[in-house]
Amino acid sequence: MSDDSSVKINRGLKGVYFERSATTFIDGKAGELRYSGYSIHDLAEHSTFEETAYLLLHGDLPNGTQLDAVTDVLKSARRLPEEIVSLITTIKHAHPMDVLRTAVSAIAAFDADTADNSIDATRAKGLRLTSQVAMILAAHEAIRNDRAPMEPDPDLSHAGNLLWMIRGEKPSEDATKLMDKDLILHAEHGSNASSFTARVVIGTEANLHAAVTAAVAALSGPAHGGAAEDVMRMAQEIGQPEHAAQYVKDKRKAGEAVTGFGHRVYRAEDPRARHMRDGVERLSKEMGEPKWFEILQAVVAAMAPYARFGVNVNVDFYSGVIYYLNGIAPDLFVPIFAAGRVPGWTVQCIEQLQNNILIRPLTLYNGPEARGYVPVGERS
Amino acid sequence: MSDDSSVKINRGLKGVYFERSATTFIDGKAGELRYSGYSIHDLAEHSTFEETAYLLLHGDLPNGTQLDAVTDVLKSARRLPEEIVSLITTIKHAHPMDVLRTAVSAIAAFDADTADNSIDATRAKGLRLTSQVAMILAAHEAIRNDRAPMEPDPDLSHAGNLLWMIRGEKPSEDATKLMDKDLILHAEHGSNASSFTARVVIGTEANLHAAVTAAVAALSGPAHGGAAEDVMRMAQEIGQPEHAAQYVKDKRKAGEAVTGFGHRVYRAEDPRARHMRDGVERLSKEMGEPKWFEILQAVVAAMAPYARFGVNVNVDFYSGVIYYLNGIAPDLFVPIFAAGRVPGWTVQCIEQLQNNILIRPLTLYNGPEARGYVPVGERS
Repeated sequence: MSDDSSVKINRGLKGVYFERSATTFIDGKAGELRYSGYSIHDLAEHSTFEETAYLLLHGDLPNGTQLDAVTDVLKSARRLPEEIVSLITTIKHAHPMDVLRTAVSAIAAFDADTADNSIDATRAKGLRLTSQVAMILAAHEAIRNDRAPMEPDPDLSHAGNLLWMIRGEKPSEDATKLMDKDLILHAEHGSNASSFTARVVIGTEANLHAAVTAAVAALSGPAHGGAAEDVMRMAQEIGQPEHAAQYVKDKRKAGEAVTGFGHRVYRAEDPRARHMRDGVERLSKEMGEPKWFEILQAVVAAMAPYARFGVNVNVDFYSGVIYYLNGIAPDLFVPIFAAGRVPGWTVQCIEQLQNNILIRPLTLYNGPEARGYVPVGERS
Repeated sequence: MSDDSSVKINRGLKGVYFERSATTFIDGKAGELRYSGYSIHDLAEHSTFEETAYLLLHGDLPNGTQLDAVTDVLKSARRLPEEIVSLITTIKHAHPMDVLRTAVSAIAAFDADTADNSIDATRAKGLRLTSQVAMILAAHEAIRNDRAPMEPDPDLSHAGNLLWMIRGEKPSEDATKLMDKDLILHAEHGSNASSFTARVVIGTEANLHAAVTAAVAALSGPAHGGAAEDVMRMAQEIGQPEHAAQYVKDKRKAGEAVTGFGHRVYRAEDPRARHMRDGVERLSKEMGEPKWFEILQAVVAAMAPYARFGVNVNVDFYSGVIYYLNGIAPDLFVPIFAAGRVPGWTVQCIEQLQNNILIRPLTLYNGPEARGYVPVGERS
């Protein structure tokens, strides 16, 4: 395995297939995305996050009884163990992703099925974690603002309760619907870096809490989860729609990427983007701040010449502005992405467990030749 | 990306190269292992863990001044933040790997350089974590046994202090030397599942604490870190050397693997095994329990026919018995492996950061065809 130019190095594992998956279909050229056969457009428009979570975990949409059951599990997992709340309090000044990762890891100690890697137990743990991740980020937001965490409201949906607990005021129906859509759009996306991390971890036969903790760790990197936060910052920097063209020009001249554009798998527009775009348009008008939508659209117009190179707007381009208009702190954008993604991580882990193998690629050695050991006193 | 039998699926990414690395050279056929050009045999026999950690992090052995500096950093990082000790107390009944993963994640909140992904900061954080991981597992062992954690002893080496803090009594020079060797042998091993996980996580530009937390998560799986614990259990089950042959026969008949044999990259004997074998031999005689060595050797003899198929003894075959003879609880075997591996995880992260790319392979879709959405009331 010493350096050998005849060996092919697949940097970033780009284009390498490592497994089959029955969950997400992506056609990057056509800009198509389906969960278990259902178009993301149908799901975004007609489904709910609860229903989509069931779909991902079971491979089929639920009937009424099944939907009630999944909703009940999500609701009853809303109350965090007291110890988790005090852990969050202890590290409340850390970045919300550091806090989320730590609390997800710690909650393993309070789940009776942590060590049970059967498919049924993994599915059940994944559903509980779906609720708990949302509750952890909401509790952290309250605690770091010196509020006691809100009581969860059993009359609210997963999305509505999340907004209620983050902001401490009841969300409008529209805001709830948009958050629900956002969570659906983020629920699953094939073998992205965080889901792949989850698979590598559960590939060693580690438990789901280990896998989801590691997935949160991967999502915390700006190159994976960070774009939503960056887009809001960019929109603020641009300030006015008429400055967008110059901003894009300067960026391209400096050889820098414009944030919120481009995706490893999409050459066409990210099919999730349009739903968020409609949301930003409506919400920014409703809130009397139409300029945010106008700034984003001016950036898209200025970027149009690059579309033929496959550089198109992605889902994160619009979602940050939605969170912002909802009064959500920018460093919570990625934790909210995580809250949506737990069902996706879980189903990837289930698929991995169903036909498990240790995931262990190779590196090609290009370091020093063999050399003799010299005692410390004889070294320069 | 729909199912297509012409697409090659690289299950487990077996044989796939994803990157170059200047750190570890492995020749699986010849059974050779080198860190930065130095034979594992030289390092195991002549080096120390402190020196090896420096070698891995800097690519060269340290001179006297450099060695003193690295030793000082390791020693001054031995004192855990009070909040970490109380976190460990809160979840003391959880598995030590769940506790370690959580505490490593939490300690991000107490490191001033957590968010600094520069190479220098990453190296410094990795060195601090090397000490902290050892201290976390030792503190947990004390706390769950209702002892206060020992005060770290600045007169002891990294290995010696770890033993002192785990057991609450000063270790013999021989026991210290053997633990030191064990940590050297576990310090790095190419792109194994936990190091690969660390690379995937830092590939998203997440921080080192995120990457090491995820690596601990991957190591917690029995298929990666678990063998040492299993071998001790097997030795106890066999009970007497003369029962080993029958045990192996029964296992092979049942089509089950014999634990501690075989490795994804070695076809010859794992070059690390011999150092642990010598240790087990000496230690088990010294402790007046020679039967453990005899049982293991009887298993090796019974497994000899399979060596020509590349099924050879690996490093974990002997290390568990060493820990056991040192009076260390079986569920600490993998955390000790982790304590040794932190320098390896860190250097892999440094290499990844030096030429970073998002690591994101693909899955091939084999799920349902596109189907139309039906409202919940109309589902069966």
